[in-house]
Amino acid sequence: MSVTRAIHRLTSLLGEGLSLSKPVLEDHGRSETYFPLAAPDAVAFPKNTQEVSAIVKICADEGCAVIGFGAGTSLEGQAQAPFGGICVDFSKMKAIRRLAQEDMVAVVEAGITREELNEELRATGLFFPVDPGANASLGGMASTRASGTTAVRYGTMRDNVIGLEVVLADGRIIQTGTEARKTSAGYDLTGLFVGAEGTLGLITALTLRLRGQPEAITAAVCAFPTVDAAVNCVIDTIQMDLSMARIEIVDTATVQTFNTMAGATMPETPHLMLEFHGTESSVQDMAETFGDIAADHGGMGFQWASRAEDRAALWHMRHHAYWTILQSRPGATALVTDVCVPISRLAEAVAAAQDDIARSGLIGPILGHVGDGNFHSILMFDPAKPEELAAAKEASERMVSRALDMGGTATGEHGIGIGKLHYMEREHGEGWNLMGDIKSALDPQNIMNPGKLVPPKN
Amino acid sequence: MSVTRAIHRLTSLLGEGLSLSKPVLEDHGRSETYFPLAAPDAVAFPKNTQEVSAIVKICADEGCAVIGFGAGTSLEGQAQAPFGGICVDFSKMKAIRRLAQEDMVAVVEAGITREELNEELRATGLFFPVDPGANASLGGMASTRASGTTAVRYGTMRDNVIGLEVVLADGRIIQTGTEARKTSAGYDLTGLFVGAEGTLGLITALTLRLRGQPEAITAAVCAFPTVDAAVNCVIDTIQMDLSMARIEIVDTATVQTFNTMAGATMPETPHLMLEFHGTESSVQDMAETFGDIAADHGGMGFQWASRAEDRAALWHMRHHAYWTILQSRPGATALVTDVCVPISRLAEAVAAAQDDIARSGLIGPILGHVGDGNFHSILMFDPAKPEELAAAKEASERMVSRALDMGGTATGEHGIGIGKLHYMEREHGEGWNLMGDIKSALDPQNIMNPGKLVPPKN
Repeated sequence: MSVTRAIHRLTSLLGEGLSLSKPVLEDHGRSETYFPLAAPDAVAFPKNTQEVSAIVKICADEGCAVIGFGAGTSLEGQAQAPFGGICVDFSKMKAIRRLAQEDMVAVVEAGITREELNEELRATGLFFPVDPGANASLGGMASTRASGTTAVRYGTMRDNVIGLEVVLADGRIIQTGTEARKTSAGYDLTGLFVGAEGTLGLITALTLRLRGQPEAITAAVCAFPTVDAAVNCVIDTIQMDLSMARIEIVDTATVQTFNTMAGATMPETPHLMLEFHGTESSVQDMAETFGDIAADHGGMGFQWASRAEDRAALWHMRHHAYWTILQSRPGATALVTDVCVPISRLAEAVAAAQDDIARSGLIGPILGHVGDGNFHSILMFDPAKPEELAAAKEASERMVSRALDMGGTATGEHGIGIGKLHYMEREHGEGWNLMGDIKSALDPQNIMNPGKLVPPKN
Repeated sequence: MSVTRAIHRLTSLLGEGLSLSKPVLEDHGRSETYFPLAAPDAVAFPKNTQEVSAIVKICADEGCAVIGFGAGTSLEGQAQAPFGGICVDFSKMKAIRRLAQEDMVAVVEAGITREELNEELRATGLFFPVDPGANASLGGMASTRASGTTAVRYGTMRDNVIGLEVVLADGRIIQTGTEARKTSAGYDLTGLFVGAEGTLGLITALTLRLRGQPEAITAAVCAFPTVDAAVNCVIDTIQMDLSMARIEIVDTATVQTFNTMAGATMPETPHLMLEFHGTESSVQDMAETFGDIAADHGGMGFQWASRAEDRAALWHMRHHAYWTILQSRPGATALVTDVCVPISRLAEAVAAAQDDIARSGLIGPILGHVGDGNFHSILMFDPAKPEELAAAKEASERMVSRALDMGGTATGEHGIGIGKLHYMEREHGEGWNLMGDIKSALDPQNIMNPGKLVPPKN
């Protein structure tokens, strides 16, 4: 194994498309949260799939690690390089290769971000619905099986990626899936690479399912006396089969931050923030039905936002909650939890999480995708105080442990990366070893994003 | 390798739960279509997962084939035993282990059929929506990634199975997935076993996502002057984001069979058969919008069926079309095609398929799940005339070849089994070898349903 030799060969291949500059390396070795810097030895900026394949072939030859990098917005250190190696940055691969409007399908390169794609789609009446908040790359979103606020209606990346182009660990290029709506032709390779965090290959292009922009959209906020009341309102709504496009919970601590940091004037109690998509009349129907259910659960001060700018302001506040909350404690960094539980257990899980946070002595506002049973606590701590990080980790451990006891998962949408590796055995049991077997079969040298997701090799 | 020794040991284990009776073996070696008998050496009837595990351990020890068997309704010979071995029949494993009504989740054993499950759910207000027509077992439906008439609204088995209990090729038992709505915790093992046709392990239990029974259901039939007009109507409907629960096409030949064999009195032109689920008002909205779109495309003689018995009669006729069509030519057997194409190409694909059928000299009514781009031709032939089977195969080859050229798939919902193995290389290219690598990693002895789905071992 020689990274030096790989870098030499990659320089010949890519010229200026390979960077060894220290700031660039550090930029690609950071994480959005609390993980210490783990920089790669070089960063490659391929312009097409053939170059990605050539890069991986060289790395396979030299036995050197390959780490995919999209927009760098992952939260569990997925794109960091704890064993060094070559980071493959997809920012020069943003083409929309094909747009089949009638079939509502787009084939895009891995580096395009969801905002860039939706900007390009604007005139077509179509959009790509998965919305994790951050302006992530589509390749990265597929790799972490991202979802976000709209999953309750449109599903996660698992549901919206129908095919992939992937460079395997030996440089071979494969195409998975088709442009048909469904297929029963063999193993679901598309599904295997979605969520694999680059440990089985590098996603270079995606075939995406698009949706029609709804005729009408209405958003709303509604205050509730307790988290419990808000969650029970959501359960009833789901059982009525009301087709909400978003339904988000923010707890009192989050509302307080919105009020102090983002100029909101919300009553300081838990709130639901929601959105309906449909026809003018179906949206109105749904809104009225929701209003009735909310009233049954003590919902108050219902505010509708049918104007596009009011909705934009609402979701901007929600999407920027992470940074707004971080800014509320200058100098702080955060550990962001991501458990997801069966919806019937959600109120209990949130209440217990609030106890965990109180016990930790930290500030940790809670917000989440309540329609999926998925919530986050943004546990803030001073990076100079190891005891605060320890307290954050302990609170997080409790939440995960409880979620697993409830039949839930350690991560609803952020993935495993470095931060959640130690939960995998408990969550999957023998299934985790099976993941290791698959990894060994597809990447026998363990060069694809080593140190992530699968059991460490002895 | 010794099947004899395996049978000896299995007899000790299972007693009367192992059958060597010739009629039982032949019953488990048949197929629903044209494949010749390929019977197993014995049929095991395990009563629980521990027994399945013990059976597989013995077979692994003795290097003998293991073939899962649900209701025997698969169409590509998936449950046949071309290499003999032990058939594992799940008909004694039908328990509903858990029903979590608030979470709309059920955990069921693999042998329960979809009709049995829905009968049990009737009083709860919930139902399991995937409906392939045949009363298949849930384990079998997962293994072939089945779908059917409701996939356009509720998705396929891929979308409605959130977790599995699986007995691996060495007898280990794993649990995949959780009861949460979504997870990003590692490789999607659930998705890997769904559609694997028992080649990676035996599914013994499934965690299913249930749905609320809609408040209102309306069904309808509508005649169109041409297949083209009907398909274009569907494309417009999908782009309007009308949430149809079913939208099926039947061609003129199918309508003729309904008229002569099932007492229908439909005008002899292509028809759409459709169903809307929703609230009273949303169903009416959708029906009116659909009526407008249909009229634009020459739709005629719109008939609504809001009464449950009228709907039941309609879908009974559709679901029994396969057998009705077969009965229209006494003594005939059939080759059933199953291509799925991007919807924009569907009209063209159906028209060309009709030409293929005319050229073959066979009768082959066409019907399909037009909202998914998936259609079937039931190519009837006399099993005593090899030249007719050859003609059916040739017509089928043309349809598949065209579907692949159009960016579609050889099989939308029936799977690969024996009948479509020879299309895998063309459809997946190098990806098929990857499936072989996964198979070798998880079943190194190649005992799980050998001869199906993956590249044959040299």
